[in-house]
Amino acid sequence: MQRKTHVVLTSHPPFIYRQSPDVNWGHADPLVRGPVIGSLTNKTHRNAIGTHSGSYTVYRALAMAAAQLPTDFKPDLRNTSPAEIIGPYPSWKDPKKIVSLDPWGGHGNEIFESYFKKGYDIRPTIAVTKAHLDLPEISELIKSKKLKVDGHVIKKSKDISVTKVAIEPVWYLPGIAERFKITEAELRKTLFEQTGGMFPELITRFDLKLLLPPIGHTSIYIFGNIKNLGNKKAEHTCRVHDECNGSDVFGSDICTCRPYLVHGIEEAVKTAQTGGVGIIAYFRKEGRSLGEVTKFLVYNARKRNKDGDTASEYFHRTECVAGVQDMRFQELMPDILHWMGVTRIDNLISMSNMKYDAIVRSGITVKNRIDIPADRIPKDALVEMEAKKAAGYFTKDASKKELSKVKGRTLDD
Amino acid sequence: MQRKTHVVLTSHPPFIYRQSPDVNWGHADPLVRGPVIGSLTNKTHRNAIGTHSGSYTVYRALAMAAAQLPTDFKPDLRNTSPAEIIGPYPSWKDPKKIVSLDPWGGHGNEIFESYFKKGYDIRPTIAVTKAHLDLPEISELIKSKKLKVDGHVIKKSKDISVTKVAIEPVWYLPGIAERFKITEAELRKTLFEQTGGMFPELITRFDLKLLLPPIGHTSIYIFGNIKNLGNKKAEHTCRVHDECNGSDVFGSDICTCRPYLVHGIEEAVKTAQTGGVGIIAYFRKEGRSLGEVTKFLVYNARKRNKDGDTASEYFHRTECVAGVQDMRFQELMPDILHWMGVTRIDNLISMSNMKYDAIVRSGITVKNRIDIPADRIPKDALVEMEAKKAAGYFTKDASKKELSKVKGRTLDD
Repeated sequence: MQRKTHVVLTSHPPFIYRQSPDVNWGHADPLVRGPVIGSLTNKTHRNAIGTHSGSYTVYRALAMAAAQLPTDFKPDLRNTSPAEIIGPYPSWKDPKKIVSLDPWGGHGNEIFESYFKKGYDIRPTIAVTKAHLDLPEISELIKSKKLKVDGHVIKKSKDISVTKVAIEPVWYLPGIAERFKITEAELRKTLFEQTGGMFPELITRFDLKLLLPPIGHTSIYIFGNIKNLGNKKAEHTCRVHDECNGSDVFGSDICTCRPYLVHGIEEAVKTAQTGGVGIIAYFRKEGRSLGEVTKFLVYNARKRNKDGDTASEYFHRTECVAGVQDMRFQELMPDILHWMGVTRIDNLISMSNMKYDAIVRSGITVKNRIDIPADRIPKDALVEMEAKKAAGYFTKDASKKELSKVKGRTLDD
Repeated sequence: MQRKTHVVLTSHPPFIYRQSPDVNWGHADPLVRGPVIGSLTNKTHRNAIGTHSGSYTVYRALAMAAAQLPTDFKPDLRNTSPAEIIGPYPSWKDPKKIVSLDPWGGHGNEIFESYFKKGYDIRPTIAVTKAHLDLPEISELIKSKKLKVDGHVIKKSKDISVTKVAIEPVWYLPGIAERFKITEAELRKTLFEQTGGMFPELITRFDLKLLLPPIGHTSIYIFGNIKNLGNKKAEHTCRVHDECNGSDVFGSDICTCRPYLVHGIEEAVKTAQTGGVGIIAYFRKEGRSLGEVTKFLVYNARKRNKDGDTASEYFHRTECVAGVQDMRFQELMPDILHWMGVTRIDNLISMSNMKYDAIVRSGITVKNRIDIPADRIPKDALVEMEAKKAAGYFTKDASKKELSKVKGRTLDD
């Protein structure tokens, strides 16, 4: 098998990246901060490791391999700019507050016009649009008058009006290392080695400080007037939700994910209806970022445990299979809140101590923490609920159950 | 900044991978086929490029960088084996039928016991478990007697009983290249270059034929008796669904994704209740594998089009922003059907000509193609529906509308 052309295994400063704009992360002037260039149409322009679209980068490469997409394709970005203006906020100009996304990522078209004119191919990493939502559980709440049609947040048609945002990961490596209290060199070396050798530039190009990792996007749904984001006089209600496909989409009854998400939407809508803003952030962190194969392996190990699927064994079973209880790294999660200028959350719709701690540590005040109402917990999910409460999850319910006695179904039921 | 230890940028046969088991893809004897070894605890054992958990590999590397997970951790796989036995089917022993997953990926524990004894760290790439589902739309159908409780598929508690499967991608590169009618060398080079330099082994190690790409998993929900999978006497109903978070989870009304998915589940349940099997496969291909940022950019461009959001402009707007209309590559999708031994689909719950063509081309017979019922199409989704019908999507509805006249909402509505 012959290679058609020369392939560069790892780049070196004198060859490619030689026209890279400098990056001054967190600089107040976005032109001095510099654009993030991860596109491949002109390799001399790049200043990031990896490329766009998170894990979908593999599909784009496949499209090019199959000759369905020319390798020099540049997007036509007319009419794509944000449907609502979010920011800039002071946090955008702070190198420490935001390290896992590019705050200016939705505004490249305007800010970096001079670069576009010189032929730089700058891709948006944030997109903001508007939508109408129609959820069966919310319709039910409207029908039973627990939510009311106000003609604005909930339209006369009973749809919910919302602004939605998609955010692609952009990692500023020195900032990521600092969050985890490790050196940048340790971070780079482990990321390279433990992914099976992804991106040699992690090791060879310490001058490139940005990584576009092949992981999922984050979606944000904002209810109410966008202008109230970060406004200290406006009430803020927020749920930061981690993906659980089995419950969120398919209604599996082993956990509380969709019921809690719906409760978050309900509270976000209510806050928006009284002049505040509601925020639902949706992170692609399936199975605590262990992935769905590991998640299902753990389900089997729990259900086959000799004493049954008990709350006392809940976390231990995950650790046996995955080595850790959780890989979600809530340390990076608050970045999206800072991106929206949030400095205070009046109602945090979550029991997670890990989420709460990360938010508070990042400098955001949390006033109230809201439990899921007890009548919305599916029966088989009581195992998860009691295990989490024992491990430090927040709840107003002071009752303690003996963990080995809270049992779920077996595989045969 | 100093590196602690030596880093190998790309492996060479005499150094690492020197104890790699051979892979004879599609061989009838799984021991001759060989195990897939993508774990990193002993690099001399590896026979795959990349590592496990799809895109969550990045989170695992981060856990190791943050010293939360030891780099030599090996999973304790006791009690994790499949909750239902699926296969082996003749397709497992055919190197062409399945190229994007490891058919033996759920059975490593038993089949490769001799390797485990020698210290090989073989990780499952498939997990099979059981669950109960509780979906609001299905509850509504039960209430209105459109679906009936049979005590078996739909339990007395009104939950649906289901077997669910998570599958991690394992790509056999020569087979993937053949599907796209390109050479393996072209595939490897483009995958390497157009991902921004992921995995130099793609270029340097042509002897390694397997890639574990950092993309999402596939989930499968199977209704009815698993033993009937592939049984020619049993009716098979199937929907192959591509993720759309905005509709599947949040009920956005711009498309038909969740209504169609629910219709698929309804039909799958009905088939299971009359002795057949129902299959819902869920692929993580957000926004036609373009990702959610691109999807939202396209929404904005559609809604701001000077003549409005029309069916005639629907595909064109995606092409302007993304360069292609679609990146989902249905060519690889039928692999999961072959993995389940499916040779005939009686009812395909999909209008997609791309899905239908790929399934039929792969050698599976399709008897009936089922439309989404007209009363389940959200109003703003008519733009998508008419554009797709004009582009060749299947429908029994012969009416043709003038595409420029089918309009959706503007961003201000």
